[in-house]
Amino acid sequence: MNASTPLTVDPLEIAQQLADEFAKTAAVRDKQGGNPKHERDLIRQSGLLALSIPREYGGQDAGWQQIFKTIQTIARVDSSLAHVYGFHHLLIATVQLFAQPEQYGAWFKQTAEQDLFWGNTLNPLDRRTTAVKIAPEEYIFQGDKSFCSGSIDSDILLCSGYNEAGKLLIGVIPTAREGVSFLGDWNNMGQRQTDSGTSHFEQVKIHESELLLNPGPFSTPYSSLRPLIAQLIFVHLFLGVAEGAYQTAIETVKTQKAWSKSLAENAVNDPYTQKHFADFYVQLEGVRLLAHKAIERLQAAWDVGENLTAEQRGEVSVAIATAKIAATNASLNITQNIFQVMGARATTAKLNLDRFWRNVRTQTLHDPVDYKYQEIGEWILTDKVPDPSFYS
Amino acid sequence: MNASTPLTVDPLEIAQQLADEFAKTAAVRDKQGGNPKHERDLIRQSGLLALSIPREYGGQDAGWQQIFKTIQTIARVDSSLAHVYGFHHLLIATVQLFAQPEQYGAWFKQTAEQDLFWGNTLNPLDRRTTAVKIAPEEYIFQGDKSFCSGSIDSDILLCSGYNEAGKLLIGVIPTAREGVSFLGDWNNMGQRQTDSGTSHFEQVKIHESELLLNPGPFSTPYSSLRPLIAQLIFVHLFLGVAEGAYQTAIETVKTQKAWSKSLAENAVNDPYTQKHFADFYVQLEGVRLLAHKAIERLQAAWDVGENLTAEQRGEVSVAIATAKIAATNASLNITQNIFQVMGARATTAKLNLDRFWRNVRTQTLHDPVDYKYQEIGEWILTDKVPDPSFYS
Amino acid sequence: MNASTPLTVDPLEIAQQLADEFAKTAAVRDKQGGNPKHERDLIRQSGLLALSIPREYGGQDAGWQQIFKTIQTIARVDSSLAHVYGFHHLLIATVQLFAQPEQYGAWFKQTAEQDLFWGNTLNPLDRRTTAVKIAPEEYIFQGDKSFCSGSIDSDILLCSGYNEAGKLLIGVIPTAREGVSFLGDWNNMGQRQTDSGTSHFEQVKIHESELLLNPGPFSTPYSSLRPLIAQLIFVHLFLGVAEGAYQTAIETVKTQKAWSKSLAENAVNDPYTQKHFADFYVQLEGVRLLAHKAIERLQAAWDVGENLTAEQRGEVSVAIATAKIAATNASLNITQNIFQVMGARATTAKLNLDRFWRNVRTQTLHDPVDYKYQEIGEWILTDKVPDPSFYS
Amino acid sequence: MNASTPLTVDPLEIAQQLADEFAKTAAVRDKQGGNPKHERDLIRQSGLLALSIPREYGGQDAGWQQIFKTIQTIARVDSSLAHVYGFHHLLIATVQLFAQPEQYGAWFKQTAEQDLFWGNTLNPLDRRTTAVKIAPEEYIFQGDKSFCSGSIDSDILLCSGYNEAGKLLIGVIPTAREGVSFLGDWNNMGQRQTDSGTSHFEQVKIHESELLLNPGPFSTPYSSLRPLIAQLIFVHLFLGVAEGAYQTAIETVKTQKAWSKSLAENAVNDPYTQKHFADFYVQLEGVRLLAHKAIERLQAAWDVGENLTAEQRGEVSVAIATAKIAATNASLNITQNIFQVMGARATTAKLNLDRFWRNVRTQTLHDPVDYKYQEIGEWILTDKVPDPSFYS
Repeated sequence: MNASTPLTVDPLEIAQQLADEFAKTAAVRDKQGGNPKHERDLIRQSGLLALSIPREYGGQDAGWQQIFKTIQTIARVDSSLAHVYGFHHLLIATVQLFAQPEQYGAWFKQTAEQDLFWGNTLNPLDRRTTAVKIAPEEYIFQGDKSFCSGSIDSDILLCSGYNEAGKLLIGVIPTAREGVSFLGDWNNMGQRQTDSGTSHFEQVKIHESELLLNPGPFSTPYSSLRPLIAQLIFVHLFLGVAEGAYQTAIETVKTQKAWSKSLAENAVNDPYTQKHFADFYVQLEGVRLLAHKAIERLQAAWDVGENLTAEQRGEVSVAIATAKIAATNASLNITQNIFQVMGARATTAKLNLDRFWRNVRTQTLHDPVDYKYQEIGEWILTDKVPDPSFYS
Repeated sequence: MNASTPLTVDPLEIAQQLADEFAKTAAVRDKQGGNPKHERDLIRQSGLLALSIPREYGGQDAGWQQIFKTIQTIARVDSSLAHVYGFHHLLIATVQLFAQPEQYGAWFKQTAEQDLFWGNTLNPLDRRTTAVKIAPEEYIFQGDKSFCSGSIDSDILLCSGYNEAGKLLIGVIPTAREGVSFLGDWNNMGQRQTDSGTSHFEQVKIHESELLLNPGPFSTPYSSLRPLIAQLIFVHLFLGVAEGAYQTAIETVKTQKAWSKSLAENAVNDPYTQKHFADFYVQLEGVRLLAHKAIERLQAAWDVGENLTAEQRGEVSVAIATAKIAATNASLNITQNIFQVMGARATTAKLNLDRFWRNVRTQTLHDPVDYKYQEIGEWILTDKVPDPSFYS
Repeated sequence: MNASTPLTVDPLEIAQQLADEFAKTAAVRDKQGGNPKHERDLIRQSGLLALSIPREYGGQDAGWQQIFKTIQTIARVDSSLAHVYGFHHLLIATVQLFAQPEQYGAWFKQTAEQDLFWGNTLNPLDRRTTAVKIAPEEYIFQGDKSFCSGSIDSDILLCSGYNEAGKLLIGVIPTAREGVSFLGDWNNMGQRQTDSGTSHFEQVKIHESELLLNPGPFSTPYSSLRPLIAQLIFVHLFLGVAEGAYQTAIETVKTQKAWSKSLAENAVNDPYTQKHFADFYVQLEGVRLLAHKAIERLQAAWDVGENLTAEQRGEVSVAIATAKIAATNASLNITQNIFQVMGARATTAKLNLDRFWRNVRTQTLHDPVDYKYQEIGEWILTDKVPDPSFYS
Repeated sequence: MNASTPLTVDPLEIAQQLADEFAKTAAVRDKQGGNPKHERDLIRQSGLLALSIPREYGGQDAGWQQIFKTIQTIARVDSSLAHVYGFHHLLIATVQLFAQPEQYGAWFKQTAEQDLFWGNTLNPLDRRTTAVKIAPEEYIFQGDKSFCSGSIDSDILLCSGYNEAGKLLIGVIPTAREGVSFLGDWNNMGQRQTDSGTSHFEQVKIHESELLLNPGPFSTPYSSLRPLIAQLIFVHLFLGVAEGAYQTAIETVKTQKAWSKSLAENAVNDPYTQKHFADFYVQLEGVRLLAHKAIERLQAAWDVGENLTAEQRGEVSVAIATAKIAATNASLNITQNIFQVMGARATTAKLNLDRFWRNVRTQTLHDPVDYKYQEIGEWILTDKVPDPSFYS
């Protein structure tokens, strides 16, 4: 389908259809790792890549609640695809925060019309890629970048390099631009189909009109919403994975006998099994509500626009950090403990149920949760909101 | 003030004013135990006793969100007063659920006009009080009842007795009715000013028009909302106490130096102290949202009225049980661990800060939280909603 | 070396040398799964297979403390090899508990002389293998058995089948016996080189002198020590894995910078990192001592021999269950949380550090820990010791 | 009895007899607070005050295992008396660590002969008491000291003051010395009969021969064992209280019906109740073993004497800190959660069962447990043992 036509189906239904399809092969694809080209194309065809694009550019102009719910829905069965799908929308938002409509309008139009997938090579901690101005409006990007989720098989690339003055320049280019290549070296214990490996820029020419200079990153509280959106994507990945694990455990337990020493005959009536599930549920409900509230705060700040104050931005940051702590704890706890209720047979490699834990264990390490606590504690005790950074 | 006049001030502000007043003496009154007559009169004068009474009877017709928030506000400083105040509204609701307007209209009018305080002697587990019909429309109640929170110094009493057939008859009478007395024997480690002791009924005459027979208790899913309201009051007691303890700890820590081995000079910058507070905050935020959602569900069910299905009622039950589990855990955890951040000097009897813990530790035992988990787990695994009972 | 010569080196040193060797390839072999033939041969050559064999048969006659410590040492780097190595000693003990010296003497001599590896096909829950008497002293075993850890590449096999009367007959045969085959179908998320797959018995002839009939399984409290030894092997697997994970984390963290927001420069001085490690250590120390005490109890019961009472056996059972609960919790907690201190780079597949968690998560499901708690709780409250079973 | 005669009864039996006696009034005395003169006299008469005194001075010369077990035994029923009794032995040890036999021999003889009770007014953090030299061998102590556990009704007093040079001088004097008085101002939420209030020194004359100058405090690793003994006393207070709470819960639950929704009829068969008790037991067993090991380490260091190295002392410190963390967590957890299994009726003030929690919650704040973790973590990661201080 062509996404420039408004979606006639509820985006959440579309996300659910994608999830149903992805679920069939998620266990196998996790083992394989690599690039899920077929599934990425299904996302392209679904029209959901235009979900966050304003209607004036042919997009669906969806609110953040809807966008995050589609990410969560996909994460229930495949958190790698949910990750790159979520980051696509993060990149769309990045451009809105760091640049002006005159600049990004054409990109958005093209994205909506052609269902283009955006990929990420913006890792500010990796300073190996340099940006050198070689002509009045021309730059050369040269070097490597690590942790480039969703870069392979993308159509448009957000890239970055440091200039001589140590300033980070961020550009938007077609992935097919000459000199861009990917090493395909992502092979980690979780999030295995996110292609979060190394990109290489070999004398890549970038025109000044492709750089996001007005206002650029972290120039205002408003533009500093960018990392918060990334953090909230992680929250929905964790939540989705936890929900997927929980649902799998329910289905498994429904068919089982209780342990021989139980007062109950069937597992669904075993008191310990029941308590474990209730414990999972209470955690999930808490995270769902915290995530929902965090989105509300983000949406409100997004709607304020450039007048957003540092204090207001800080409150969004706290709400998202709160949701992230709860989502981190709940997802680790649930993906670990579903095995306790499912028993030994659930460890067969065929089912590959450890992928739930491996995925959240990997992604929850993006930045240390201890310092999310620290930031909130500091705010409570000193009223200081977290400083904007690529992690807060 | 006379509550039949609509309140011109926000009920939450009134509750806050009461809380500010109660806070001055809460530590001392906790030690004393007994009946907080002065404070109960301040509640009467505040007009808040009419908060839940429909406007047609001179009340404020407040929604459940507002009612529960006033309970929570008072619980932050005094969970005994919050308890009897909350139970007053529970009894007002009980009459609406178990009887018809023709019967309760006059009681409500009188309550709103005269700021009457309702008290509870309805403990269905204590079968010592008998109800014997001695004339076509006349009954004699005889015997004891335990756990009668808020009975002493009440104006109107919800009472109950078992008839020969083992049916529980519930009546509404003036507390001053001849033969009614209170032993004043409540002396427990927490909730010490709730007067939750024993009532005695000595040949108390009750007219059939004072009995709640139409439809009576547990006759329909709708009338079975009663125990859920009680449970949700507990949630707001736990939440309020936890918030009160948390706020006290913040104020205490703000004035302290960090421990000598800390990398920070002041306690507010100590990494461990910061993490503890963030941990408290994440828990509190989760409980606040779960409580809010539970109220929404209750309000929706309340608004449906007699057509409420067992399934719909069950979902309210699950939402409230979920909030109760989270509130139980968070309040025990926070009231215990505030000491960890405040240090040894916070244990002085003068401050009486252990009352936070003693209050929630006592009240959380109303019914075992293990079986709240059990009910939710059973619902998850078998789709069976909790059976209505005086605890679910 | 030939193990019939007394070891001149401390068995723990030998175990450590094996561990050092296994460590070099453990990460890679975990991915491969399958049978670790080379490493099993190193165990054979080490002489440790005779460790538990009485000196009179050419063995080392080691006490249980020493035996378990060698298992734990190997488990620190490779819990699959530790498992099959531990089970070898379990099978040696099984024969001592279920049979008489006249019967097992020759097997032990041969084992010590030739460094034979015993394998397990005794899964009493799998009733598919039948044992039919076809002549006065001859039986035919026919059928499948699942969960046969250490069966492939074994030299001697403990096997079992149910006769027509439903009695479990247990035999000891050369693995090379005609009709014995292995499906090699073990492919699970953890303990991947234990070969815990399916065995097949195709008209396997077993002579009555190869059956363990005097006194046979579960005939006395003493013979019922067998499952307790199995449980205590698991304890040392969990403990060893947790120690291995902990040690890996220490080494990793020592080279890292602290997170940018830390008050410390290096990770080793970061307050949160320090607290996590102390938390791991306190858990490990507790488990080490509980395991040590459980071995003491087992050794004392082992030394009592056939006069062991049901009560005495029960106390060993409780001590081992206690250690198992603590080891289960600690090993899951530590293998999950080492990532929290090591950060995102520790998730690279090359290091394969998730194998610690996968191994304990898999093996801790052997039987549900909830019912270990249940047994201990029942004993506390009713003085009833756990009933002997294949799990208690 | 006169303790100069060797005890003919096992000290643990004597401690148990004292405990049995104290148990009768512990609940009531906790409410009263103040000085337990009668019970202190029973301790005097028991002969246990000479337990730690070397035999050459008429004492029992008991090892540390025995001393700590008597403290733990008393703490099971009364942690205030256990505290002052334990501190008596700490003060006896202090003199051995800070002074020479020629000086302390007479004090010990007198203590053993007359069953003298030593009291503590050594709070190094409170610098209000000054020590001024007024003659070649005479000093005047002047000022206040807070947190003087066991000072009231003591016979001998360890006291301290800072001289002009800021050096802490520690003396041993008869409590009856002119100018010594006690404010009796200890009134805290826990440890209510420890008399841990303020002492006042009004121009108190102290002779140089009463000062502990050779080698004095913290002069060597060996003399620095003193605070570790104090910490290990706390461990046994926490452990004893937890055991007392646990035992009370067992007895309570044995008489109860299970909750109406339980699959069991009696509480002792309820699955959740059983699991809670097993959880308590596993924690207690861990703490018991960690405490035992810590005593072993202390005893070994004590036996080394003045040659003890800083490294060896550091290892004792780590072992005790480990036990303290586990004891802190277990005692808080158990004293809080026994209510969960005992239910609402256990909250009656008559039973006063919240004293278990109040006692450990108070005493665990002596110094922050977070920094016990910190010290161990630092040691793990940097090999630096904790610096000797009054808390480590």
